[in-house]
Amino acid sequence: MPQHTPDAAAAEPGPVPDVFAWIDDAERARERAGLVRTLRPRPASSPLLDLASNDYLGLSRHPETVRGAREAAERWGAGATGSRLVTGTTELHAELERELADFCGFEAALVLSSGYAANLAAVTALSDRGTLVVSDAGNHASIVDGCRLSRAETAVVPHADVAGARKTLAAHTGRALLVSDSVFSVDGDAAPLTGYAAACREQGAALIVDDAHGLGVLGEGGRGALHAAGLAGAPGVVATLTLSKSLGSQGGAVLGPAKVIRHLINTARTFIFDTGLAPAAAGAALASLRLLRSEPERAGLAREVAAALYGRLTASGLTAARPDAAVVSVRAPSAPAALRWAADCREAGLSVGCFRPPSVPDGVSRLRLTARADLTGDEIDRAVETILRTAPAGATDR
Amino acid sequence: MPQHTPDAAAAEPGPVPDVFAWIDDAERARERAGLVRTLRPRPASSPLLDLASNDYLGLSRHPETVRGAREAAERWGAGATGSRLVTGTTELHAELERELADFCGFEAALVLSSGYAANLAAVTALSDRGTLVVSDAGNHASIVDGCRLSRAETAVVPHADVAGARKTLAAHTGRALLVSDSVFSVDGDAAPLTGYAAACREQGAALIVDDAHGLGVLGEGGRGALHAAGLAGAPGVVATLTLSKSLGSQGGAVLGPAKVIRHLINTARTFIFDTGLAPAAAGAALASLRLLRSEPERAGLAREVAAALYGRLTASGLTAARPDAAVVSVRAPSAPAALRWAADCREAGLSVGCFRPPSVPDGVSRLRLTARADLTGDEIDRAVETILRTAPAGATDR
Repeated sequence: MPQHTPDAAAAEPGPVPDVFAWIDDAERARERAGLVRTLRPRPASSPLLDLASNDYLGLSRHPETVRGAREAAERWGAGATGSRLVTGTTELHAELERELADFCGFEAALVLSSGYAANLAAVTALSDRGTLVVSDAGNHASIVDGCRLSRAETAVVPHADVAGARKTLAAHTGRALLVSDSVFSVDGDAAPLTGYAAACREQGAALIVDDAHGLGVLGEGGRGALHAAGLAGAPGVVATLTLSKSLGSQGGAVLGPAKVIRHLINTARTFIFDTGLAPAAAGAALASLRLLRSEPERAGLAREVAAALYGRLTASGLTAARPDAAVVSVRAPSAPAALRWAADCREAGLSVGCFRPPSVPDGVSRLRLTARADLTGDEIDRAVETILRTAPAGATDR
Repeated sequence: MPQHTPDAAAAEPGPVPDVFAWIDDAERARERAGLVRTLRPRPASSPLLDLASNDYLGLSRHPETVRGAREAAERWGAGATGSRLVTGTTELHAELERELADFCGFEAALVLSSGYAANLAAVTALSDRGTLVVSDAGNHASIVDGCRLSRAETAVVPHADVAGARKTLAAHTGRALLVSDSVFSVDGDAAPLTGYAAACREQGAALIVDDAHGLGVLGEGGRGALHAAGLAGAPGVVATLTLSKSLGSQGGAVLGPAKVIRHLINTARTFIFDTGLAPAAAGAALASLRLLRSEPERAGLAREVAAALYGRLTASGLTAARPDAAVVSVRAPSAPAALRWAADCREAGLSVGCFRPPSVPDGVSRLRLTARADLTGDEIDRAVETILRTAPAGATDR
């Protein structure tokens, strides 16, 4: 990559060399690999059938959720105006935290501006230089970044390998924690939470579980994967959540023992040095949470839609992972084929996710379908028909 | 710190030891040091006079800004529903990005869910293992964390030391970037942007400037510190912003050459793996931005209020840093004295920020006052009178 020497630049004040020339090379490399990502702004009313969002319960446009956003903005203003430690905590934030903790079965909760910030906060604040952090190989980027940001030693163990996690914990003396997604975003498979929790109990380690894709979908009335596993509120267990998936809003949260939450308030940099979540987002999440309470059937509907999509697509020869929650991941023969498949679906009126490297841990590109609780039978028919019709050569096993 | 041994725990399944027992020790240490932070939820209508928020232009409750939030939630839903790369980019996000870039004088912009995420994105995506990142010692936690997350070598140079930064850059061969706040959050002082930019040009380094506290306050009509310095849109210059301070909303942005923005879209993990900014926050920020255009006097008013506060407080013997923007930082004799001072102000109806370790780089505790463009003369009188009346022994130099 071309670099001018500092002395030459100082001596000849001619045209300034482009310090970002290296980006041109990176762009060309992405183009050659067929891995260029571009933003595709969507209109307010799209004719596309959405099987790509994480709006699992269809609440982002629910009148009650939108009303929660609107009324919060009107009552509290458009922004939190500062760090939660200064002016950024409103009674609305406190109310959301109480109801989130209560619904999911934890002692206390702390709301942050994103699920990403929540994972960075939990992993960094609950570890230090002597801590071992054991991280499932399939974990979300925000957990990986939390491990990188922490001063702890990180051991990445193979995906869903309870024995491996236990062995790694046993080899360490001193503080340790195990961190895992509850439902993995790419393949939609569930973590072995019971096994992970047992390993942590045996080895005296804390367990942090990111339930971003479990909240609203798994457990009684959508109380999440930890509730389903009998681990909600268990000693040594901390959950992180997003408010931007099943709750249709924005933000993240950490749930756990009250003293863990107090510790985060005092030490978590992504909490202390960030502006509080906007009132509209807090209000929308709170309204959605109350909908989950009053209409507990939504969680089961999302799982049923996922099972129907999986059953029909695999019966027709596509390869997919059995969904443990609301994500159905369908394998594509290659990254370009996945991209073309998704584009063909879009052309036919269906929006699906397309995951390619580096967003896939194993290098295998996929269509990622998300089941929504509010999809109708006709919409499921249309989605299945479109995906099968546009499937590339090599996508089916027959 | 007590640790049970794994084997003992496995052999005797009695009461499970508390894996978070170490937090008790940390809490006691904080109590002894007088450094316990607690959340104080505020009501929707507070009788307190606010000199603590970062709502520099008083826009978070402006009817137009609130309307921007409300209408966006109604039109686009309460959440973005996914990553900006999947379903999370709306035409509203694109509109906000175009207008932000245009207002601040850059080719392109990218909106993220927070300023924290924007700094993590810019620093990590624009550096790699061979890059030297030169970071001002006064930089915000999110820049520090960006440096930690990056694979680059980081060199922290003394605060505002242009010669030191130049020398450090000159000693490095290969890619380099210099990163600095434009206005430092704690003391409210401005970075030597012209000097930093010249050092970068000479040494072939990129310059990243966090203009969180400059946007809306500095530059023509609030176009920010880079615009004021003639550096907006300059080759090799990238800005990061928050939408949560002068714009009264939530979120962050990166501004720069279009290819830098494309590179972030393709590589920045806090962009790719995060849910898009909620429509209400994007709509509120856009409405505020349009207010800045139509009422360009707001920026100057905020600076005038800051100058008035500084002038009157220092004339009465308090020690403060001369404000370069809207933050006025007043020194306190100790952390407990700062805490009591802020509490006494609050008791008297005035909300001020209280910065103590570890939120202050030099260990000196401070009251942090933020000037708002919409403070009246009477409110300024009341604020000054209250701060002077409650000042602890040792706060004045006379």
